[in-house]
Amino acid sequence: MTLGEFSVIARFFSRPVSAGILGVGDDAARLRLPPNTDLVSCKDLLIEGRHFFANVSPDTLGHKALAVNLSDLAAMGAKPLACLLGIGLVTPRADWLAEFADGFYRLADQWQCPLIGGDTIASEFGTVISVTVMGTLPSGELGLRRNRGQIDDDLWVSGDLGGADVALRALQGDVNISPELLAATRARLERPEPRVALGQALLPHAHAAIDISDGLTQDLQHLLKASNCGAEIHWQQLPIHPMIQTLPENIKRLAVLNGGDVYELCFTAPRRSRAAIEQLAIALSVPLSRVGSLTPTPGLRLRHGNGLVESLTAQGFDHFKRGEQHG
Amino acid sequence: MTLGEFSVIARFFSRPVSAGILGVGDDAARLRLPPNTDLVSCKDLLIEGRHFFANVSPDTLGHKALAVNLSDLAAMGAKPLACLLGIGLVTPRADWLAEFADGFYRLADQWQCPLIGGDTIASEFGTVISVTVMGTLPSGELGLRRNRGQIDDDLWVSGDLGGADVALRALQGDVNISPELLAATRARLERPEPRVALGQALLPHAHAAIDISDGLTQDLQHLLKASNCGAEIHWQQLPIHPMIQTLPENIKRLAVLNGGDVYELCFTAPRRSRAAIEQLAIALSVPLSRVGSLTPTPGLRLRHGNGLVESLTAQGFDHFKRGEQHG
Repeated sequence: MTLGEFSVIARFFSRPVSAGILGVGDDAARLRLPPNTDLVSCKDLLIEGRHFFANVSPDTLGHKALAVNLSDLAAMGAKPLACLLGIGLVTPRADWLAEFADGFYRLADQWQCPLIGGDTIASEFGTVISVTVMGTLPSGELGLRRNRGQIDDDLWVSGDLGGADVALRALQGDVNISPELLAATRARLERPEPRVALGQALLPHAHAAIDISDGLTQDLQHLLKASNCGAEIHWQQLPIHPMIQTLPENIKRLAVLNGGDVYELCFTAPRRSRAAIEQLAIALSVPLSRVGSLTPTPGLRLRHGNGLVESLTAQGFDHFKRGEQHG
Repeated sequence: MTLGEFSVIARFFSRPVSAGILGVGDDAARLRLPPNTDLVSCKDLLIEGRHFFANVSPDTLGHKALAVNLSDLAAMGAKPLACLLGIGLVTPRADWLAEFADGFYRLADQWQCPLIGGDTIASEFGTVISVTVMGTLPSGELGLRRNRGQIDDDLWVSGDLGGADVALRALQGDVNISPELLAATRARLERPEPRVALGQALLPHAHAAIDISDGLTQDLQHLLKASNCGAEIHWQQLPIHPMIQTLPENIKRLAVLNGGDVYELCFTAPRRSRAAIEQLAIALSVPLSRVGSLTPTPGLRLRHGNGLVESLTAQGFDHFKRGEQHG
């Protein structure tokens, strides 16, 4: 069954919003910000064949399209406020849209981030998704800027690393892994949990933060450059996904250091915050690993268990590099 | 020359923003709303082959991608605050990007709507553009809602009608028109001027408004449905583009009543506002035509010079209808 634009919006993307918010159905949406807050906003564009497989489950895609944006808000320490969804489809199908909407709204409800507007169009090509998320930060709060890292800050990473990259390579047919390992890692790729509560909770304790969606090495170097310092990280302290420990070293190393699609936070904090951050990990049930520290020497260095120290160069995901799918 | 993602952002989309705004370069953008204002936001997605021709001039595309969103803000009476740009390109080329950025920033500067963030990615297919615009409305102001039309309100239209549709059909090869007529009409299609100042100026005088980007007949009926009334419009009072007056009646009629890509405002206002609205037209140098009025009888009727009255049904642009390009 083919659907018209207005029935797509009415049937799938017009769930009620809170009182006081003007949502879908006019030329634009309208809402009031809480007092003494600043507006924080970001957007991501996802294109079939590039950011997701054509046969991805629509529920998963709905989840991920919002998750990657909430992750950017989390890396600022912002609280979600509302979101807008643009969706381009070759042929709108009711069953596909119903599942996509379920995945999207489930995460939106979880973080109280109502869908208030957007655009629904026909695409000549594949599916295109564009999400904008708006959030708030207290006006007096500096926020988790990339440029606030300070020399001698501890360097922390949330969650674990390498799972999404291993799952992506397996799904692309580049590596052979067991069905059990694929099952254990593909949730990292397909259903990332944005660290929204963690970002807000870090505001009093952390200095700088970034989400490492383009890979730890690349994104951390953005933070270092902005903060005008370097860092040393310890291989043995990196939170490697437990199920990939037994993979060959070269695959594991690439996945952990350069693998993209990691919606975890990398953040810096002074030593005096250690106890508070360890408490946060328990309170929020989010693993937080202290993986190194910021240094006056520029560049990023990796220290191994045997004492060897090597220089790392940025080799994460470039959105214009061809031949690699960002899962 | 092929460009990486970060050099595209750095070279083309990082022009300075006002003090107090955190723009491109962190995980998200940040700004403060003026006191006692609400946030108004909207987004549009534009896809090559569907919303623009592959060979469109990039300057024109940059202008239009922002203009269509500013038009939605204008239809709410909102003042632009800032915008976000998502852009997907098969192959990023410096000359193309420089022209696109010029077209985009020129309009953004004109309406003081700084570009504060976005996303730049590779597309497997054609060019994809997604723009989000944020604006403000005074908190105590009802705004130009679609549902605020009242029976006996005058119905007004800004600018003129039919030009964009005639140009689109000519460019598609569906009709033959003179080079002079194409030159005179294609600016309506390619460089629409969003009625931003008009929308804000109408706040004290008008009730309901909508932008008629999907065609007068279709969009006006959204307003009528939301306002729970009908309308009668007069063919002889419609502001037909002066250069298309001599076209065959059937082409002219379709272009004026159903032609899309019209970034004009259709609004309703009480009779007592007539003088004020006529003054606005002069002050802002925007033609404003009183074309009919709202009626208790539902539906949309067209009255001709000979007294004949016909019923109109919605036949504007459906974004999922195939075989027609939204120019």
